Amino acid sequence: MVTGLTTSGTGSHSHGGPSLETRFGSLFAELAEIGRRPDGSYDRKAWTPEDASARQWFQSQASRLGLACEVDRNGNLWAWWGGPGAKAVVTGSHLDTVVGGGAFDGAVGVVAGFAALEHLMRLNRPPRRPIAVVAFADEEGARFGVPTFGSRLMMGQLEPAAVRRRDDGHSTTVEEALRAASLDPDALGADEARVNRIDTFIEVHIEQGTDLAHADYPIGLAESVWPHGRWRLSLAGSPNHAGTARMRDRHDPMLVAASGILGARQIASDDAVFATVGKVAIKPNSANSIAESVDLWLDLRASSDVILDAALEEWMAAVRKAAQPHTVDLNLTCESRSLGVGFDRGLREAIRELAGHRPVPTLSTAAGHDAAVLASSCRTAMIFVRNHTGINHARAEAATLEDCAVATDLLAAAFLRLAIDEPAEGV
Amino acid sequence: MVTGLTTSGTGSHSHGGPSLETRFGSLFAELAEIGRRPDGSYDRKAWTPEDASARQWFQSQASRLGLACEVDRNGNLWAWWGGPGAKAVVTGSHLDTVVGGGAFDGAVGVVAGFAALEHLMRLNRPPRRPIAVVAFADEEGARFGVPTFGSRLMMGQLEPAAVRRRDDGHSTTVEEALRAASLDPDALGADEARVNRIDTFIEVHIEQGTDLAHADYPIGLAESVWPHGRWRLSLAGSPNHAGTARMRDRHDPMLVAASGILGARQIASDDAVFATVGKVAIKPNSANSIAESVDLWLDLRASSDVILDAALEEWMAAVRKAAQPHTVDLNLTCESRSLGVGFDRGLREAIRELAGHRPVPTLSTAAGHDAAVLASSCRTAMIFVRNHTGINHARAEAATLEDCAVATDLLAAAFLRLAIDEPAEGV
Repeated sequence: MVTGLTTSGTGSHSHGGPSLETRFGSLFAELAEIGRRPDGSYDRKAWTPEDASARQWFQSQASRLGLACEVDRNGNLWAWWGGPGAKAVVTGSHLDTVVGGGAFDGAVGVVAGFAALEHLMRLNRPPRRPIAVVAFADEEGARFGVPTFGSRLMMGQLEPAAVRRRDDGHSTTVEEALRAASLDPDALGADEARVNRIDTFIEVHIEQGTDLAHADYPIGLAESVWPHGRWRLSLAGSPNHAGTARMRDRHDPMLVAASGILGARQIASDDAVFATVGKVAIKPNSANSIAESVDLWLDLRASSDVILDAALEEWMAAVRKAAQPHTVDLNLTCESRSLGVGFDRGLREAIRELAGHRPVPTLSTAAGHDAAVLASSCRTAMIFVRNHTGINHARAEAATLEDCAVATDLLAAAFLRLAIDEPAEGV
Repeated sequence: MVTGLTTSGTGSHSHGGPSLETRFGSLFAELAEIGRRPDGSYDRKAWTPEDASARQWFQSQASRLGLACEVDRNGNLWAWWGGPGAKAVVTGSHLDTVVGGGAFDGAVGVVAGFAALEHLMRLNRPPRRPIAVVAFADEEGARFGVPTFGSRLMMGQLEPAAVRRRDDGHSTTVEEALRAASLDPDALGADEARVNRIDTFIEVHIEQGTDLAHADYPIGLAESVWPHGRWRLSLAGSPNHAGTARMRDRHDPMLVAASGILGARQIASDDAVFATVGKVAIKPNSANSIAESVDLWLDLRASSDVILDAALEEWMAAVRKAAQPHTVDLNLTCESRSLGVGFDRGLREAIRELAGHRPVPTLSTAAGHDAAVLASSCRTAMIFVRNHTGINHARAEAATLEDCAVATDLLAAAFLRLAIDEPAEGV
């Protein structure tokens, strides 16, 4: 145990109470009950009853541990040890999931936060700095199409007026969903005072790939997040009857959409560009009607901003070429765009040092995270937990409690060093 | 006027009452109020409140004209002049529309039926044979995916047990929809006695192409309906996070679906094969998730059954090839398959003769119709009305009242000849 506390990470019990693995496991099991569907996948989209239950669970954990709980103006949940204050050291992640998501994405980071704090509380030493666990609101953006909603609003990276009006495709707007959750949509927006309080943010997260599994390491540290963005391509053709319109008279946007989907694969490469079309909306979506319009969403991530821009341009050129013979109108709008983020090298090396003899490799990721959103204003780090399937956003996400406990232990060690022990040089 | 009645088809009035054009126009205008959306397109899917209003309109027309109205076991509406009986001469079409459909598809045939009967009633001669206007239930299949529902059930071409359980994607089953419409789902099925009553069925329908417009004829007669069918291709891959799964590790069914969509265009040709993918269902359909599964529907029509089979085989070979590098599972199911139908030559020539000096070209169509369903058990004919846009299943459907009146006039002439005048040789 790198924290030097007396319990072991392997499940055995000692005079110090339950092991970190047991502690993590029992908290994780509670959260894993919420929003689980019969097939084992999850649906805890933001501001749904399932999300509300998970938020309720967060508040009950804070209360159980005697932490001061608050909901900020952007819907993020905070549990403070030592009360809110300056130079805070914060951990956490998010509670919401995509539809059909897994048990680990987001949940691991919040559970690790509570388990680490509970572990540290047994030291009976008051924290030198405020410590908090946070659950950022609507990280996935699965319902309203605005990922990292809570953290970006807090950071002033999202325009509140633009997000309030968004709807979930079932005629509920962000505004209405927030009101139903007893939040004031007019209070959304940059929260400078809160942001300025945060000195350090460390997020534990399941790895979204198989690098750790292949190299046989239980945990890793994030070096950077690739720049990424989401674009919506709207294609407008002419609706018609599939059984009667001559092929040459058609303006079928579905054919152009198909070229866009295949075009995304063409611009992708494992080392530099991930490109995916995972969402398509068709009108009227009827088997014997030629589509009137097709919208598709391109999710694009690249190892640099220049490469990302070039990939997008190449894709659009291919789409335009495909659209031409069908005389289909096209319109591209950018729904989100995040620049690449490098995490704090000093913090990363300090955490790595705390791991002692255990080798902790450095990884890059193409996924967005709340930690990346916060990176521009405070020291941030991410601890990844090995994912045996490498699959993410699906029920096949698979981390062991043992590996989660290793990450939680390192998180606790970092809090001990940064906020409880005397400050050390260089951290 | 080929009926020899005293009113003219050009809108002028005489001692005989309103012109056929005016008569058709006022009835058509009533029906065109029902289920019209703000953008001018229609939504009268089967067993919706809009469909119920249209059915109510049918019943009020029957009542106004003193016709005996009945709803058969399969939900089809019948308005009888002279009461139900043997050797009936029947006309009609359907009242339901696809979502986003136009004002003419289906409606023209029902309105022409009532307008023609009203026109003929002024002769004050009792019909020699029973005459009826019919509105077949759920011709489009837009809600439950079962086109020509009412006519095929009546003909014994659909298995009632299989259709009862189908749902509309919003968790309402056919069974529930029928009960809500005061129909008994257990009574669905072959209605031999009713079918045996029908000697002749003539359906007036808007043309679903531009052949008449290009050749400048107001009406045409159908020679045949191409064989056609609908297949559902289910593609199952592995769900994953779009931002993290390496391109080479993916099993993305969306890429195979895109190849299937483009493949449909590859097998198509204007003279022999129409192939369309107009409907796609994606799970979870989230912008940052690699799809877990994609289902797509292939609508295929061909000038012969052999050509249709060959086109389907060619398409599936291309899909299988596309699926292989992605290790995506595929499963093809046939949702409907109709053999080609030739309409009755004798009836067609008799109707053409009634048009006198007006040339009435013969057309083939790739669209399914209730008339084609009935063709195996009685003499059937279809009169097509010129469609200036050629567009169908969309608000741009465009027939003039003048052309509709020409078709109605010819329909009335056929009824006069077949069911009111003395029988003629060969008809």
